[in-house]
Amino acid sequence: MDTRRAESFSDGVFAVAITVLVFNLLPIADHAATYHSVLVQAWPQYAAYAVGFLTIGIMWLNHHTLLTNAARVDRVMLVLNIILLMFVVAVPFVTALVANNLTRSAESARVAVVAYGLLNILMSFGYTAIWQYLSINQDKLATGPLGLRWSTSLRFSSGLLGYVAATVIGGLWSPDAAVAIYAAVGLYYLFEHLPTAAVAGDGDDEA
Amino acid sequence: MDTRRAESFSDGVFAVAITVLVFNLLPIADHAATYHSVLVQAWPQYAAYAVGFLTIGIMWLNHHTLLTNAARVDRVMLVLNIILLMFVVAVPFVTALVANNLTRSAESARVAVVAYGLLNILMSFGYTAIWQYLSINQDKLATGPLGLRWSTSLRFSSGLLGYVAATVIGGLWSPDAAVAIYAAVGLYYLFEHLPTAAVAGDGDDEA
Amino acid sequence: MDTRRAESFSDGVFAVAITVLVFNLLPIADHAATYHSVLVQAWPQYAAYAVGFLTIGIMWLNHHTLLTNAARVDRVMLVLNIILLMFVVAVPFVTALVANNLTRSAESARVAVVAYGLLNILMSFGYTAIWQYLSINQDKLATGPLGLRWSTSLRFSSGLLGYVAATVIGGLWSPDAAVAIYAAVGLYYLFEHLPTAAVAGDGDDEA
Amino acid sequence: MDTRRAESFSDGVFAVAITVLVFNLLPIADHAATYHSVLVQAWPQYAAYAVGFLTIGIMWLNHHTLLTNAARVDRVMLVLNIILLMFVVAVPFVTALVANNLTRSAESARVAVVAYGLLNILMSFGYTAIWQYLSINQDKLATGPLGLRWSTSLRFSSGLLGYVAATVIGGLWSPDAAVAIYAAVGLYYLFEHLPTAAVAGDGDDEA
Repeated sequence: MDTRRAESFSDGVFAVAITVLVFNLLPIADHAATYHSVLVQAWPQYAAYAVGFLTIGIMWLNHHTLLTNAARVDRVMLVLNIILLMFVVAVPFVTALVANNLTRSAESARVAVVAYGLLNILMSFGYTAIWQYLSINQDKLATGPLGLRWSTSLRFSSGLLGYVAATVIGGLWSPDAAVAIYAAVGLYYLFEHLPTAAVAGDGDDEA
Repeated sequence: MDTRRAESFSDGVFAVAITVLVFNLLPIADHAATYHSVLVQAWPQYAAYAVGFLTIGIMWLNHHTLLTNAARVDRVMLVLNIILLMFVVAVPFVTALVANNLTRSAESARVAVVAYGLLNILMSFGYTAIWQYLSINQDKLATGPLGLRWSTSLRFSSGLLGYVAATVIGGLWSPDAAVAIYAAVGLYYLFEHLPTAAVAGDGDDEA
Repeated sequence: MDTRRAESFSDGVFAVAITVLVFNLLPIADHAATYHSVLVQAWPQYAAYAVGFLTIGIMWLNHHTLLTNAARVDRVMLVLNIILLMFVVAVPFVTALVANNLTRSAESARVAVVAYGLLNILMSFGYTAIWQYLSINQDKLATGPLGLRWSTSLRFSSGLLGYVAATVIGGLWSPDAAVAIYAAVGLYYLFEHLPTAAVAGDGDDEA
Repeated sequence: MDTRRAESFSDGVFAVAITVLVFNLLPIADHAATYHSVLVQAWPQYAAYAVGFLTIGIMWLNHHTLLTNAARVDRVMLVLNIILLMFVVAVPFVTALVANNLTRSAESARVAVVAYGLLNILMSFGYTAIWQYLSINQDKLATGPLGLRWSTSLRFSSGLLGYVAATVIGGLWSPDAAVAIYAAVGLYYLFEHLPTAAVAGDGDDEA
């Protein structure tokens, strides 16, 4: 199978998942609007919306870059992709969990931050699984030799390490510190990224 | 009509239907989060989310494989496709029904499991109808001779048999046994699949 | 502008609108499931779901057929298309209105049936507007001469006439008769359809 | 990266965001329908639905026109695009805010109108940022020389000026005057638009 329909389906799932985030804002419109309620009090909802949007947006960027390395996909890779999307679609849920619990109580904040971290760890595993499967089967599936395998694994690992650290720190000690680490990892992935396909990109540094 | 726009529309419907499953998780975020409520008590919701996601994901895979055998589609086939999608889009509903009722009472579990089974039987009929119509009109619509017709019908039938058995067993006797059979049929479809188009695949065993 | 991106956007809107119909089923899963509540009492929801799904599905089919006659689209046609989509996306709303009010009281049923009819009349005007604009500008926008203009207008008019009749009958006299007419018009559109592009179809009677 | 997958993802987000607007109508169907409740009392919901639909529709048109000027996109442009989409997806939220608060009280109307204006200002900045980035990097990213830069900036600025004026007037003085200005700016953007790509359009004035 060529990658076109897998990309088209994945793009659709990313597009819907990112738009589902607005459902966390809609309840704000149910009550009488005051400057305080809409422009001040709702800040955790807006912050969570922005973070969730950038998270899924970056996931989409990286998913796209990942697939530029694949010339074709087989059934195993499609199943791995569906499992990855299963985690991506759950992002609006953990985002709402953090938004609703961060300022509620110490325990609620800790639980929400741990759930958020666990999902991000699962997403990291999902990307790593697709990448490793593509590396192992690169003669059958890749657009060209995937030369940067070790440095790429390192980049994945540093992101994963950040999520694990934030989950442990947030669960045992400070939810606020965990949120700061999540934001830092997000910014890291915003600027850092997977290598693009050598065949398609040809010395081009842009994804 | 070529198959491109029918695929594009179907992909969109599959993508939205699979994402709607997250709406069964969002209510968990409405209450104060505790380790027990989020990470333990909500397990039927998470299990239903995963099963529903894999179910729709597999449906998409099989839908894609089915359409690789079609070179063009006519109005009858488009209407059959819309009816199939009507059943696919109802998956989040029966999934939520099972998640909310499996641990509630014996009768509720039985009803939910029967509703789930009936929808899966309808989906099997939907795929069979499209496949039979394509077989009968293969000289007009197919990419090539659909040689594997009998073994394919057998595969469909074994899945359908599983759903019928689970529906009867779940309705009369044990909802838990029905859920186990649903999971087994899901795994079967995850690894087994329709033959790909001989023309496009050319001795290739992967979808 | 070629028609590709307009088709892609419209397909996305149709796909989401058709999937939104499942939100009318989800509340059924919130309560304890009994054979009566899930398999019997909820029939207006299931009927409305099926009718709404087929309605939007047929709209998509006709939209697709309409656009096969267009080689390119200009800004006016895109604005007309957005207005048509505005009516299509409201179908889940009037469908829910009918489902929730048909068995509630005589007045509620009448109001719901009138709202449903008004939306269908607006959709008919939307299609007619696009078709007329395409006819008038066929030398600039169409794939070829649109020869069947009068018979096509007649087909549109007969559908529109049905909707107007049902709206008046449902509002003044019998909601049930109105629902029967809506179903008849739906079946008519399921089998009847716009002419396909002569250039693309070449004597082919299938859309 | 070529622009195809960025367009496909953006189209998906626009399509879902525009369809989310129907969720502001669905609650009307929850209550017993009367002529007054459905056809009269709900007018702010219908007006907001129409305005929100046209707003997102115009955004899609302009987004499309903007991208016809780009031959390829780099990572910075994709990130700017995600930020713009983040504002677009929030349109159903501010639309619901205005619909629910315009007739509630003077303060609520003022707050809603200000929130609506702020989001439109953010969207204007989002478009301007993409356009400026494309202008600066036109030798690398554009389909041809972007000659109309100054007049284009002027058009953007006049829209932005309208939003700023309406936000200030609505916040300090009259929410109704603000709504009138929003409608005027919407009509302006419906007929006015960005220049299309000289390469693709070739003296053609239509997008």
